[in-house]
Amino acid sequence: MHSPKLLSLPVSLLLVCTAAVAQTPAAVPADPLPSWNAGPAKQAIVDFVHATTDKASAKFVAPEARIATFDQDGTLWVEHPLYTQVMYCLEKVPALVAKKPELKGVEPFKTVLQVLGGDRAAAAKLSLHDLEVVAAAALSGMTVEQFTRDVQQWLSTAKDARWKRPYTELAYLPMLELLRYLRANGFKTYIVTGGGQDFVRVYAEAVYGIPPEQVVGTAGATTYGYANDGTPVLRKEPKVLLNDNGPGKPEGIHLVIGRRPLAAFGNSTGDQQMLEYTGAGDGARLEMLVLHDDAKREYAYGPARGLPATKVGTFPPRLDDLAKQKGWTVISMKDDWKRLFAFDAAP
Amino acid sequence: MHSPKLLSLPVSLLLVCTAAVAQTPAAVPADPLPSWNAGPAKQAIVDFVHATTDKASAKFVAPEARIATFDQDGTLWVEHPLYTQVMYCLEKVPALVAKKPELKGVEPFKTVLQVLGGDRAAAAKLSLHDLEVVAAAALSGMTVEQFTRDVQQWLSTAKDARWKRPYTELAYLPMLELLRYLRANGFKTYIVTGGGQDFVRVYAEAVYGIPPEQVVGTAGATTYGYANDGTPVLRKEPKVLLNDNGPGKPEGIHLVIGRRPLAAFGNSTGDQQMLEYTGAGDGARLEMLVLHDDAKREYAYGPARGLPATKVGTFPPRLDDLAKQKGWTVISMKDDWKRLFAFDAAP
Repeated sequence: MHSPKLLSLPVSLLLVCTAAVAQTPAAVPADPLPSWNAGPAKQAIVDFVHATTDKASAKFVAPEARIATFDQDGTLWVEHPLYTQVMYCLEKVPALVAKKPELKGVEPFKTVLQVLGGDRAAAAKLSLHDLEVVAAAALSGMTVEQFTRDVQQWLSTAKDARWKRPYTELAYLPMLELLRYLRANGFKTYIVTGGGQDFVRVYAEAVYGIPPEQVVGTAGATTYGYANDGTPVLRKEPKVLLNDNGPGKPEGIHLVIGRRPLAAFGNSTGDQQMLEYTGAGDGARLEMLVLHDDAKREYAYGPARGLPATKVGTFPPRLDDLAKQKGWTVISMKDDWKRLFAFDAAP
Repeated sequence: MHSPKLLSLPVSLLLVCTAAVAQTPAAVPADPLPSWNAGPAKQAIVDFVHATTDKASAKFVAPEARIATFDQDGTLWVEHPLYTQVMYCLEKVPALVAKKPELKGVEPFKTVLQVLGGDRAAAAKLSLHDLEVVAAAALSGMTVEQFTRDVQQWLSTAKDARWKRPYTELAYLPMLELLRYLRANGFKTYIVTGGGQDFVRVYAEAVYGIPPEQVVGTAGATTYGYANDGTPVLRKEPKVLLNDNGPGKPEGIHLVIGRRPLAAFGNSTGDQQMLEYTGAGDGARLEMLVLHDDAKREYAYGPARGLPATKVGTFPPRLDDLAKQKGWTVISMKDDWKRLFAFDAAP
């Protein structure tokens, strides 16, 4: 016998119940990229994943060949106004000087101490070569385990000056979604960074879900030897083995991965060759450039449409022209991303 | 009602049936290492895997940290009397001379041509430096894709002189079982070879189930550039970036993997530092040395118990002493392996 109560329910309510059932996650797949606005960038990603993972697709790729490479600074997290690793190196100077007091009066250490003492204007005096000298001193001489512990320690307290948050919170939420989406579709995700391989490995697993063996970066030599108690140790040397920037990116990809990526993501001229090399392979390819055109929520610099290059020397004005010529997809932070960071309020 | 036929079956037959059921693979797990004789080597492997993968074990290791590294030549496949890659380089000399006829009268190419012409005794004149000169010529100048195709082509026809079989069939069956057993237990298996990284990558997936990104080897530099039609290419240079032998093995492991292995397998002094480095980590560790003490089924050379070193200069006589001192497990080919190759008749 029918329940008089059910029969008495209005038709509209029954329709609402039916709609609710249809909207459960099991019935309608959740958007894997919820922080991306609909548009050509999001569409290019979804189309690429379908083309390479659908067995019925002419461009289907076996799971083992699904390699995606990501630049880090400016592509996966904030790089402005200074790379996080440069901040680390500068902030190591007081400890270096404490250990070797004779460095106190020697450039570039002298200027770095002035900057850290509050004289921000003095930073303009530091050349790229100066930064290399500081980096060589800050990134060598210790064992690889000592270095890892020191970076972990620094990251646990250091904060970005604008957001007053640990640097590890400044990863772009849309890119974290993209990494997860690709991995859920059988892609192996790699970082291919001009930054230090050992530095990025310290936090890549926690921040991006990328294990140490999937971080390719500028790599210093290590030397195998023995501590005083006979324990084998690997000590970091002030000698660059792989300069993983520009043409060094495809070279580093070949050295560490040994396969050509299907997809590559970058934001600067240092990524040009990685994107070219990726795009020169057969079948479905995806090359994307993150454009920093969001002065309000992040920064506007580089080759954004008509915006001034605020980071002189790093970005030529016409990387977006190259993207057009090559058929690369530009990701506009302003237009394509609903939310930038996980700590941002949901839109 | 009971069937009179069933009741009439003798008790002994019923017992046989019960025993047969108990012996199905589902009831008794198959031996994952069927080509290994019972003994301390096999036991050490099984104990190590249980200790690191049983969640109740005090030495349990999370899957992402389960890294095992294997030397190739002499550990995973036959290296005697010459490394396969040396054969490849020597056999490339006629093609090199055809391209550059002036090399014909120049050493060491002249001697190599004599050896290939049948004068096997002339091989004794070739020094290690001569082989390096030939290798540099044979392994550089082409794009990485051209090199891969050429090695594939060579491997499809080249044969070992003793077994008259392709080199790729000379992988040790017990080690193939070990690789599979470790992978089935969540280990990531890497080759860490003094041989050429690009050379080994060509066949590592087909022979060992090890993908290119899990091959660490002696690596030459590549240079990114453009072919005449503008296509981006990586060209192999005659310059060594990583000499992945001896102390270079832990250095290469750090460069490419960035984690200390839990288990390492080798057979020569070139593997000593890799095994030391592996053993110096915390928790359960497994370091094993393959001992070539089977003159009948393979070769006897190196630091085997009292056997003469037939490969002078490569193996000091006391690597087995080092193994005892360090607590490494020696794998005796003669005693520990039932079958050497997949093409051997089952014992």
